[in-house]
Amino acid sequence: MELIDGNQIAAAIAAELKAEVAAIQGRKPCIALVRVGEDPASVSYVKKKEKTAAEIGITSRIILPPVTISQPELFALLDALNADPDVDGILVQSPLPKHIDEVATFRRVSALKDVDGFNTLNLGKVAQEDDTGFVACTPAGIMELLRRTGVDLKGKHVVVVGRSLIVGKPIALLALQKKAGANGTVTICHSGTADLPALTRQADVLIAAIGRAEFVTAAMVKRGAVVIDVGINRVADPSKKNGYRLTGDVHFPSVAPLAGKITPVPGGVGPMTVAMLMKNTVKAFRLRAGQ
Amino acid sequence: MELIDGNQIAAAIAAELKAEVAAIQGRKPCIALVRVGEDPASVSYVKKKEKTAAEIGITSRIILPPVTISQPELFALLDALNADPDVDGILVQSPLPKHIDEVATFRRVSALKDVDGFNTLNLGKVAQEDDTGFVACTPAGIMELLRRTGVDLKGKHVVVVGRSLIVGKPIALLALQKKAGANGTVTICHSGTADLPALTRQADVLIAAIGRAEFVTAAMVKRGAVVIDVGINRVADPSKKNGYRLTGDVHFPSVAPLAGKITPVPGGVGPMTVAMLMKNTVKAFRLRAGQ
Repeated sequence: MELIDGNQIAAAIAAELKAEVAAIQGRKPCIALVRVGEDPASVSYVKKKEKTAAEIGITSRIILPPVTISQPELFALLDALNADPDVDGILVQSPLPKHIDEVATFRRVSALKDVDGFNTLNLGKVAQEDDTGFVACTPAGIMELLRRTGVDLKGKHVVVVGRSLIVGKPIALLALQKKAGANGTVTICHSGTADLPALTRQADVLIAAIGRAEFVTAAMVKRGAVVIDVGINRVADPSKKNGYRLTGDVHFPSVAPLAGKITPVPGGVGPMTVAMLMKNTVKAFRLRAGQ
Repeated sequence: MELIDGNQIAAAIAAELKAEVAAIQGRKPCIALVRVGEDPASVSYVKKKEKTAAEIGITSRIILPPVTISQPELFALLDALNADPDVDGILVQSPLPKHIDEVATFRRVSALKDVDGFNTLNLGKVAQEDDTGFVACTPAGIMELLRRTGVDLKGKHVVVVGRSLIVGKPIALLALQKKAGANGTVTICHSGTADLPALTRQADVLIAAIGRAEFVTAAMVKRGAVVIDVGINRVADPSKKNGYRLTGDVHFPSVAPLAGKITPVPGGVGPMTVAMLMKNTVKAFRLRAGQ
């Protein structure tokens, strides 16, 4: 069994981006990070993104509207960022307060600055195999993990557990593309699948993104399979100071001995998400600059 | 074995649309049918669409630019139709002449009038389960065939053979949606799939859209499966006056006795495509009129 080290791969990508950004003359790529309110998880995510941007040499502009901001005010703020020539990428940190329509907000971000890849047009481009758009960071990160650990999906059966808009569907579409590294045969399972273990046991590459702690057990995995764990779940653990531990959608202790390769949680897919956000920001800069 | 009669179901849809259109006061829905040049298949397809529109009471506007039209001229023509308040839907008949970029042309049609469902935004909406867009006519027609013959995909394994942008991918996304009639588990296979028969034999619902005559044989089908044949292939047949016969992607004589339900070719999916184009046109009219 080989452990796929997401921290190491994300660091390698950051180093590549740093060299790339250093070579850019004049104005550097800039990402606007919009965080509404003071949700503690959001505070820490945005801090991490700001820090990674700084390490790479990407300018970040932190915008912190109060939790009481109205939908029209938030839209006006996004419209201004969409129109701002010095801003290349815009990230609106989720979750948003309940009075804000999240989908409408993500759609308000210009497709050209949608570095999170949540815009309808960018999802359509993934389906159309059109590389001028932005791929959502988690599925893009998974493809990059596979590529950089020598996993070619050609002729492989990729089984995705979970059909979310942000992970399950785009990773299925990416795995299916007629491109080097992809060309997989893809099955998408979910909570309503009749005999899920019978399908997951067929997977050469198993992607768990169903959002249930330790849902995938050894009995569901074929020996030698590549296992990508997208889940980040909090499980109560009185032995920990904060009262919980983080765990993935895969029961790591039983699955790891079986797997050919496997991502840990934390330290697998998670760190890739921020790296891909930065990669998308540099891409947005180049597309806008015509470089 | 039950034969799924696409002609009958398409006629039922046309009758429903006719009643719906008759009840519309004032201006009726209007579709612009753009055919470039005199490709014989295109001539016959556009004629069929014009005839069906007339039967339903949909106004059609036939536009026949010469095969020599330039890309900018065609774009100008589409821009004028996009801006025309009396036009609800726009169909550009494919194939287009070689000097015209087909994808760019389909994208030029406003997403609000894209009754063919080829626009990137409308494909993204299918992935996002957003019903305000237009679903491409062939996959929409397949879902309608299933619905009207009592096939509920919930808990079923749907295997799609073929990953085209116009059929394979959108039908996979539709079958997967969290909606009544859908909620299937979906596998997408293609020419690069390692052991294709092993996967197709698992299908409760098998959708053949690979574009190879009689590719799916009895050995690839589970007894009782619902078989939807999207293929339309010409096979040489000296016994026919025109020298060929039409056949699907399924070897009908061997598969039909096994299948629970099956669509014939011709007379299965084919007629549904025109019916769904008309349904999309009425939808476009209502969306534009705010009805």
